[in-house]
Amino acid sequence: MNEHLIVRNVHRPSQETIDALAPLGAATVHEAIGRRGFLGPRIRPIQSGVRIAGSAITVSSHPGDNLMIHAAIEFCQPGDILVVSTTSASTNGMFGDLFASSLRSRGVRGVVIDAGVRDTQELREMNFPVWSQYVSCQGTVKASPGSVNVPIVLGEQRICPGDVICADDDGVVVVSRGEADRALEKSIARLAKEEVTRARLVAGELGVDFYGLRPKLAELGVRYVDSLGEVDESD
Amino acid sequence: MNEHLIVRNVHRPSQETIDALAPLGAATVHEAIGRRGFLGPRIRPIQSGVRIAGSAITVSSHPGDNLMIHAAIEFCQPGDILVVSTTSASTNGMFGDLFASSLRSRGVRGVVIDAGVRDTQELREMNFPVWSQYVSCQGTVKASPGSVNVPIVLGEQRICPGDVICADDDGVVVVSRGEADRALEKSIARLAKEEVTRARLVAGELGVDFYGLRPKLAELGVRYVDSLGEVDESD
Amino acid sequence: MNEHLIVRNVHRPSQETIDALAPLGAATVHEAIGRRGFLGPRIRPIQSGVRIAGSAITVSSHPGDNLMIHAAIEFCQPGDILVVSTTSASTNGMFGDLFASSLRSRGVRGVVIDAGVRDTQELREMNFPVWSQYVSCQGTVKASPGSVNVPIVLGEQRICPGDVICADDDGVVVVSRGEADRALEKSIARLAKEEVTRARLVAGELGVDFYGLRPKLAELGVRYVDSLGEVDESD
Amino acid sequence: MNEHLIVRNVHRPSQETIDALAPLGAATVHEAIGRRGFLGPRIRPIQSGVRIAGSAITVSSHPGDNLMIHAAIEFCQPGDILVVSTTSASTNGMFGDLFASSLRSRGVRGVVIDAGVRDTQELREMNFPVWSQYVSCQGTVKASPGSVNVPIVLGEQRICPGDVICADDDGVVVVSRGEADRALEKSIARLAKEEVTRARLVAGELGVDFYGLRPKLAELGVRYVDSLGEVDESD
Amino acid sequence: MNEHLIVRNVHRPSQETIDALAPLGAATVHEAIGRRGFLGPRIRPIQSGVRIAGSAITVSSHPGDNLMIHAAIEFCQPGDILVVSTTSASTNGMFGDLFASSLRSRGVRGVVIDAGVRDTQELREMNFPVWSQYVSCQGTVKASPGSVNVPIVLGEQRICPGDVICADDDGVVVVSRGEADRALEKSIARLAKEEVTRARLVAGELGVDFYGLRPKLAELGVRYVDSLGEVDESD
Amino acid sequence: MNEHLIVRNVHRPSQETIDALAPLGAATVHEAIGRRGFLGPRIRPIQSGVRIAGSAITVSSHPGDNLMIHAAIEFCQPGDILVVSTTSASTNGMFGDLFASSLRSRGVRGVVIDAGVRDTQELREMNFPVWSQYVSCQGTVKASPGSVNVPIVLGEQRICPGDVICADDDGVVVVSRGEADRALEKSIARLAKEEVTRARLVAGELGVDFYGLRPKLAELGVRYVDSLGEVDESD
Repeated sequence: MNEHLIVRNVHRPSQETIDALAPLGAATVHEAIGRRGFLGPRIRPIQSGVRIAGSAITVSSHPGDNLMIHAAIEFCQPGDILVVSTTSASTNGMFGDLFASSLRSRGVRGVVIDAGVRDTQELREMNFPVWSQYVSCQGTVKASPGSVNVPIVLGEQRICPGDVICADDDGVVVVSRGEADRALEKSIARLAKEEVTRARLVAGELGVDFYGLRPKLAELGVRYVDSLGEVDESD
Repeated sequence: MNEHLIVRNVHRPSQETIDALAPLGAATVHEAIGRRGFLGPRIRPIQSGVRIAGSAITVSSHPGDNLMIHAAIEFCQPGDILVVSTTSASTNGMFGDLFASSLRSRGVRGVVIDAGVRDTQELREMNFPVWSQYVSCQGTVKASPGSVNVPIVLGEQRICPGDVICADDDGVVVVSRGEADRALEKSIARLAKEEVTRARLVAGELGVDFYGLRPKLAELGVRYVDSLGEVDESD
Repeated sequence: MNEHLIVRNVHRPSQETIDALAPLGAATVHEAIGRRGFLGPRIRPIQSGVRIAGSAITVSSHPGDNLMIHAAIEFCQPGDILVVSTTSASTNGMFGDLFASSLRSRGVRGVVIDAGVRDTQELREMNFPVWSQYVSCQGTVKASPGSVNVPIVLGEQRICPGDVICADDDGVVVVSRGEADRALEKSIARLAKEEVTRARLVAGELGVDFYGLRPKLAELGVRYVDSLGEVDESD
Repeated sequence: MNEHLIVRNVHRPSQETIDALAPLGAATVHEAIGRRGFLGPRIRPIQSGVRIAGSAITVSSHPGDNLMIHAAIEFCQPGDILVVSTTSASTNGMFGDLFASSLRSRGVRGVVIDAGVRDTQELREMNFPVWSQYVSCQGTVKASPGSVNVPIVLGEQRICPGDVICADDDGVVVVSRGEADRALEKSIARLAKEEVTRARLVAGELGVDFYGLRPKLAELGVRYVDSLGEVDESD
Repeated sequence: MNEHLIVRNVHRPSQETIDALAPLGAATVHEAIGRRGFLGPRIRPIQSGVRIAGSAITVSSHPGDNLMIHAAIEFCQPGDILVVSTTSASTNGMFGDLFASSLRSRGVRGVVIDAGVRDTQELREMNFPVWSQYVSCQGTVKASPGSVNVPIVLGEQRICPGDVICADDDGVVVVSRGEADRALEKSIARLAKEEVTRARLVAGELGVDFYGLRPKLAELGVRYVDSLGEVDESD
Repeated sequence: MNEHLIVRNVHRPSQETIDALAPLGAATVHEAIGRRGFLGPRIRPIQSGVRIAGSAITVSSHPGDNLMIHAAIEFCQPGDILVVSTTSASTNGMFGDLFASSLRSRGVRGVVIDAGVRDTQELREMNFPVWSQYVSCQGTVKASPGSVNVPIVLGEQRICPGDVICADDDGVVVVSRGEADRALEKSIARLAKEEVTRARLVAGELGVDFYGLRPKLAELGVRYVDSLGEVDESD
């Protein structure tokens, strides 16, 4: 029941879909698929201004042990993003610039890890993007088994190999492989709609009006007053 | 007792006072008013090197719900800063670039929010400054009532509409409306005094001397020794 | 037993060793000395891209009180790094630009503090590097005794006066004074070895091969499969 | 602007109101006054099964310093609860059994403190209830000024001297002095209503029915299905 | 893609299997299924000494909103455990004694919730067990849609309706429905083996011997010495 | 430099001293030795009302790995307390009832661990006391080297083998071996003095008087007023 597996084959969405999702941004995609898939505010970028998408290669690892990251690399392809979770919380710097050199040579676009990263200055200099929970010098061992390309949970989200990872300064969002095409379609629609909204807002129109929120406020019993002084405290 | 109110009118300090406070910095103002008003280390800027001041428009919101932010916008004026607290902890990205577009069109200078913010890359690109507790893609609903321009508590500080908000890389400080003029006066005095102090420190004088701390150290029983070896362990 | 002491004399490693350690980076030094000495992921730089080393001047302080930092400054020399711990947790901004002016005039290279720092914008402008746990406007008093240049514990590491502090974007590592020369030697050896490794990785070789990890994976019972579908769930 | 004050006189609500609020419980009172006044989940009891109410004597203290608690005691009367906040975060054990002995001799009912408590075993043995954020051996100094019986903020709530504190296993709720009588009245009404609700629920009636939530669910677009299999994934 | 669903039918494991798993304890079951399924250290019991198992009814809820808990109750059956996750972090007291009255009348055995609980004294008095992340008075609204009996993620574990929940003082473990019988079998085998181990340990045998760890220690380079004094520091 | 060592011999203080320290309580001993040695508020007991002292057997372990705990047991003697730190943060349940059975058979009095513990119900039933940071089902591996009976740091305190550990409901305090006799002497003196203080406090005397704090308050500028109304806001 607790077998440790390395799965060789990953079904990936089309590269066109992934590449089209990349510039749309994590928040837009998250909204487009129904406010789902966000890995949470603890997973933060070590760089600023980078926006990528890629297909997930998943790793489930013992805390403070990078053996399974080594095992995962040979299954990475151009356009992939390596996603690493640990079986219990870890602050260790489980990923650094040597791993990045190896992944870059295989065309991998970035890393998401629910533990620590190190060599952050070098990683920024080589423009290899990472999203992690911690920055930490603390090294790891290569001693314990784990799995590659099995479904994992990271930041309260389930991630399967081949799912699309969208990451930028706002954090990381996962889109399941089967949803990728519709996510793209809906994201583009959402952006178009947002452009219209933005134009109206910039022109000075109020959201409370064009979203039609005034009846809602009234229905919820929110009362407009000129000043607190006019509120009868005995209400 | 639990009425939800939107208060239309806000008494603001003079714009001259606010504008004069802006470049002084949060730490200086905090010191000048007696080490009070700091919203705490959890409220952090999403940008670097921005220093602003403005009059507070306050929002009390249900967690994960931005209805009351929509309701607040029509009461914002040039020179204001929107300040949003939630009735219980929230990580949701309750503020983003559409709101910023709307606020900018009304001359609002920035936002302070005790929850999450998203579209951070876009917000930095449009130079709209935000101080928040989290960065999060996670969207919100528009479903629950709250209040606008009532006194709120954020980061263990009470903030009333019209109070002055001073924010920079060190965080956010609130100055009550009635204190604004004296805060400015005292901050300027403090800066002048600091310039003198700095000059003496740069010249190599020791703080322990010109602050007169040596008698204090002696009175507190702090003992100078050449090395730990000379300390009688049986003391 | 609870005497508060200020120790005047500090035995420092050779400046050549310290200067040679500086550019190697905290993670490399941490690895070279056996994955020890890291102050943990909570101690973070307020700047980006700075890499320094220096000899420790240690301060043990009451929370929210900077009296002992004042007392420590006269014992600082060019090439030192001031390291401040508190006897219980503190978020206060215990260090700011006036202290930095004073320390710079004495040739101090930076500060590590297990509490808060303020004036961060000014500190970055004057290129005075700080690693701290918090950024906070909150000022301090000068009321309680403490010690200077006694052994302290910060981030689960023991630091003695004269130990070498290596700090960069990855955090802070302490090397005991007696280990400094060997740490340098081993760090250089490690970097040389890493260069070889990097070249092979960039050339596409797999870590799982040249680290010889395949037998380990087999021994640990990790099984390679083409797809999850071929795994007999009744195993 | 930063004067430290000890205010001698406190206006308290009637003891009858306070005593009547005590057995109703923090959650009931919190609901009755409109879901306000809760000091948050970080303030926890050190004992189990105690439910009290009292009038607040407030203390604003420097972190790790109990001088102002000493100063506050002479203003405590039978039926009071001592409420202590610190000007920045503190884990120190600022309250212990000696203080409790002193407060008990004055009829004080308990303590709420946004820092640490110690002597917890002794406090439980003498049945003196405490709600705190931490348990900590760590002692304090008596070195820094603060205030007694001024408005304070604790757990994102404003507390004035004479406000009613209701505390039990669920945490601590503050009721402003002027609201105490209506809070009692509304709490009793709420309990009566809850009894009816409970009887219907115990009899097997569904909340979704007697709260009339089915139309709300329909309006929100929540759909009932027999199994996930019948959901068309292309929706 | 973001449809909110209430699924009526749940496939449950046999009640015999569930009841047999209950007394075995969360840690034993967790070990037996390969150290998987633990909801993490943040989910804690509000009571002590209770050990239960049940089949999961799952709820996905907006933070601070209990509408979907109301909707879930009619699908609960005797032997179930209600499991509630929120779409973003929430400290609100989303569950209390009225819900417990309702669930008890339907034979539900307990609740697991990744938010707050209130009425904890009453819940303990009525022996209704709850595992939660927070204790909080803070009430909720009934305003936002969610889902019932869909797969959820809680504490980095995926939970499907009908999965077995095992909970005690050590926390909560989920066993997937299809694994329940083998989990029981393996847990019993593990307990039998542990009894033998315990007898040998109580008799004074060393784990390092009968687990055969001495060769492992040697292989890892761990060296036995009589005292630190004999270690050549130049090693 | 990073050798992993198991040190066989430990110099312990006299059992009489240890046994005399046990009932005095962690807070008293902490005060008596100058407010030092507290392991911090994160290390909490899993039981209530237990007060012990013992000599430390120290373990430095890889996170999530209990190999070195196994290795440590043969060096434990009656009267010892096992103290376990990890080289980086770990939530894993690294200690449970099987270990406790083994330690009890050797006369060990309890365990302090900077990670998780499991089997807490069983441990309470067998009256084996544990202080830990987490409670967690999550099991460990036996794969990585570490050390036994070397100096460790736990909770910002340095602990050497043979140091005295004092633990109760207030947490854990370490007393260095060489200080044990004086710590006992000073603790007894402190308790005697506290008895006198308590008697005076119970009799109604004020701490502000017999500690002589009124001049201090005056010197610090704390001002007594009858009400806030008499404070001139222009001060």
